[in-house]
Amino acid sequence: MDASSGNRGGEGSASDAPMVKNSLGRMVPTLWKGKSYEPYRDPWSRAPAVDRGTRPLVRRNPWESKVLKSLREAIERCDLRDGMTISTHHHLRNGDRLLNLLVQECEAMGLKNLTVASSSVHPVNAEIIPCIRNGTITRCETGVNGLIGELASKGELDFPIVVRSHGGRARSILAGDVPVDAAFIAAPCCDETGNLNGAQGPSACGSLGYAHTDARYARKVVAVTDHLVPYPASPVSISQSDVDFVVPIDSLGDSQKIVSTTTRVTRDPAGLLIAKHAAEVIEAAGLLRNGFSFQTGSGGTSLAVAENVRNRMRELGIKGSFGCGGITGYFVDMLEEGLFHTLFDVQCFDLKAVQSFGRNIMHREISADLYANPFNRGCVVNQLDCVILGATEVDLDFNVNVNTESNGYLLHNTGGHCDTAAGARLAIVVAPSIRGRLPIIRDSVTTVTTPGETVDVIVTERGIAVAPRHQELAKELARRRLPVKEIRQLHEETTALTGKPRPIPFTDNIIALIEYRDGSIIDVVRQVQE
Amino acid sequence: MDASSGNRGGEGSASDAPMVKNSLGRMVPTLWKGKSYEPYRDPWSRAPAVDRGTRPLVRRNPWESKVLKSLREAIERCDLRDGMTISTHHHLRNGDRLLNLLVQECEAMGLKNLTVASSSVHPVNAEIIPCIRNGTITRCETGVNGLIGELASKGELDFPIVVRSHGGRARSILAGDVPVDAAFIAAPCCDETGNLNGAQGPSACGSLGYAHTDARYARKVVAVTDHLVPYPASPVSISQSDVDFVVPIDSLGDSQKIVSTTTRVTRDPAGLLIAKHAAEVIEAAGLLRNGFSFQTGSGGTSLAVAENVRNRMRELGIKGSFGCGGITGYFVDMLEEGLFHTLFDVQCFDLKAVQSFGRNIMHREISADLYANPFNRGCVVNQLDCVILGATEVDLDFNVNVNTESNGYLLHNTGGHCDTAAGARLAIVVAPSIRGRLPIIRDSVTTVTTPGETVDVIVTERGIAVAPRHQELAKELARRRLPVKEIRQLHEETTALTGKPRPIPFTDNIIALIEYRDGSIIDVVRQVQE
Repeated sequence: MDASSGNRGGEGSASDAPMVKNSLGRMVPTLWKGKSYEPYRDPWSRAPAVDRGTRPLVRRNPWESKVLKSLREAIERCDLRDGMTISTHHHLRNGDRLLNLLVQECEAMGLKNLTVASSSVHPVNAEIIPCIRNGTITRCETGVNGLIGELASKGELDFPIVVRSHGGRARSILAGDVPVDAAFIAAPCCDETGNLNGAQGPSACGSLGYAHTDARYARKVVAVTDHLVPYPASPVSISQSDVDFVVPIDSLGDSQKIVSTTTRVTRDPAGLLIAKHAAEVIEAAGLLRNGFSFQTGSGGTSLAVAENVRNRMRELGIKGSFGCGGITGYFVDMLEEGLFHTLFDVQCFDLKAVQSFGRNIMHREISADLYANPFNRGCVVNQLDCVILGATEVDLDFNVNVNTESNGYLLHNTGGHCDTAAGARLAIVVAPSIRGRLPIIRDSVTTVTTPGETVDVIVTERGIAVAPRHQELAKELARRRLPVKEIRQLHEETTALTGKPRPIPFTDNIIALIEYRDGSIIDVVRQVQE
Repeated sequence: MDASSGNRGGEGSASDAPMVKNSLGRMVPTLWKGKSYEPYRDPWSRAPAVDRGTRPLVRRNPWESKVLKSLREAIERCDLRDGMTISTHHHLRNGDRLLNLLVQECEAMGLKNLTVASSSVHPVNAEIIPCIRNGTITRCETGVNGLIGELASKGELDFPIVVRSHGGRARSILAGDVPVDAAFIAAPCCDETGNLNGAQGPSACGSLGYAHTDARYARKVVAVTDHLVPYPASPVSISQSDVDFVVPIDSLGDSQKIVSTTTRVTRDPAGLLIAKHAAEVIEAAGLLRNGFSFQTGSGGTSLAVAENVRNRMRELGIKGSFGCGGITGYFVDMLEEGLFHTLFDVQCFDLKAVQSFGRNIMHREISADLYANPFNRGCVVNQLDCVILGATEVDLDFNVNVNTESNGYLLHNTGGHCDTAAGARLAIVVAPSIRGRLPIIRDSVTTVTTPGETVDVIVTERGIAVAPRHQELAKELARRRLPVKEIRQLHEETTALTGKPRPIPFTDNIIALIEYRDGSIIDVVRQVQE
């Protein structure tokens, strides 16, 4: 990491934070913006020493109504005050309107110094930037996608960001690190008592997996809906026993943008080669047997891996156990074909998944806690055989960056990246060896999202690198005549073509922490010197 | 209540407990067997002043196994010690084997002074009586059905019992009144990580609604199964994220006895008349409209009410909203016919319900907390239009007894009786006017289970009594030429036939508390003087 001596930051800059070197050699603060943190040590040993979060019990009698007229009334009834913490969930993704409406209403009410602890923030939420500038919201306990991260990286926004994985966010709430004062849950289908689901209504988005933790642990819970139905909204995803208030509004967002991710198999020859090799690695590792469990993202190369795997499962007559994570229509097909027994769905990635979600009893909604929280009695990712992951950069120790881009800007949230890498028997990163004239494999990644201790194989179109602890797998790949290479060799080959990337000039002002799923700090993101 | 001065009890007898009169005129202790209690005031006003219960967070890494060899190993790993509290659930009802095995194993290990906080205790659990006598288990934080209650009533067992409703039990655990040290969950279908459901396997019993609270709040959670399946056991009712250990055993019980309740419509003419009148009361109250919601038990008269209601719904073309509580095949038919939108199932009462439970996405499992806990943000019973309830006795203030029998013995648990009465718009008690030569309607009930403030109508074959606060309904019934009578008149008519029942001779030794759903003490059960 390059950190120049320039420092545009004021309060909370590196200079006033006690810094220590974590086990990956990254300098991280033990105190930042008024909160204490521990440096990352390893993926396995940090254990909780606290009780699960709680909140006051309340009583509600049969004649009491929860339905309120407006977001403002809900904010008042939640007794939201300066300095408190609000949250939303991001299943509506770049179609989300609620976070914007909520923050703007808080601004109109003159609230100040609020913390946003949503499950993620998307480009559409750039609308709230004026409310950052004027001090309505001044802290961000979630990773961001898009412009807010860019402006923070440029030092143009004073908005301290703590980036967390899906499992890490659930952990942070259960462990009391981030107490949410009022959760506002976008409810595509809701009744007057607050039973709600994402299966029905004009803004149907399927699973509401990220919102479950908020519903269970936030001090006050508000369901906001554009589809109020007669009791009961069923199937019930989040139940009336957890919801304080219900607010009907015109629209939760632009339903056209709810499904915004690539959901087609790539046609790029390099991507197809990578996918073929990744599927062969899975088979070589002995995982393609009955009971196989699998997660991919929704990118074109990931789906191409899934296609290869599906075809191989058919040929071999294999019945898998489960697919999990963000669910695509591709996985729905595999469920319906009998290639999976169950889908564990924390977020639907396309409309086909949304439709299946509402009707197939084996397409199960799971909370982010059940999905990936390392601090419970066992999360689903612990049972994963294989996950296919992306990368912006990978270093020689297999550490992976997905948070910052080549310009050093914080542009992406972590998602389930480090969670699934830790849980899965085989975590495969698929990436082109060169992207935008820059090599994927680096001496050192700009930002560590996922520690190399949990990444097993890197598949590029130029060769396959296997983590040194998997010598047997490397031998088996070689036996199968797959292009196994040392990661240093891949690095040298690609750098010979691209040249050594120019270091990004950073100031020493820390604009974000990258929190590992266990709550320790694995890296920081610094302001870019323009 | 008649309480003679005889006192066979030792420690904890009425004489050493500070007694106060509650709002129903019952003398109840404020301190009993070392715990403090409040007297019952009214159904609505007692509110919680505590945070929801919690437990230590734990972490589990992917390679750690939860599967243990035996119940003994589980007891050891739970670090169960003298004086601690264990629980089981009662969905297997009189086929349950687990509570017996568990208590006997505790005895074999020399544990003493354990508290049993199961969701209920059935006649089959009389096997544990020797372990009460020898001090292995010495306190019972749940109501009992059968011999244990009888022996306690005779003063032959020193086993202080606190009887709770389904909602009240969930409340007591969430509010921390009854912290469970180790919950042992009979799991009809379970995988090695502890995902479990009641839909599959040789001991399939459907919903596990009572066990959810234990799974979420017990300090340690053990899934005990006779049907260990490959991961994932799906649909997941209770998830791996809540389960510490998994113990495979030969059999959870006698599956023939899992379904033990009457599930046929009565053929008794008096019962049929009562049912007809009850259905007419529902219609007269204006509840038979679209969105109608309904609960009945599984007795023959209750099912006859359901049959009348179903026929009337068909005739009127009515689409109901939900059926809830213990679910019978009768309600499954109504769901499948479109007469209900959803079933909220806390317990399956027959095999048809079990089968529906595993396949129909609108047949939903709910926890006892969501079902009936008054201390959450809103329970399902609050939305009930009508519940049909039974009674052993009803008094002139409409107070109902279902706990003690005419001999004064504590023989029945409360179930959802007082929960649904409080929640439903219309709580109808159906009962013959005379049972076993004794009148149902009394000057005073032996034991108050459910306060008259929450009971609306009593339907007997001899006439219909309407609570005085419902004058409009009484007039409407009269207009419809239904046999409305003052409750005093019904009382006089039946007592004229039966004679005045002989008072039961009680000592002043309190053998059980009847806790109302809000945690206050609505009555006590005293030892019978033999």
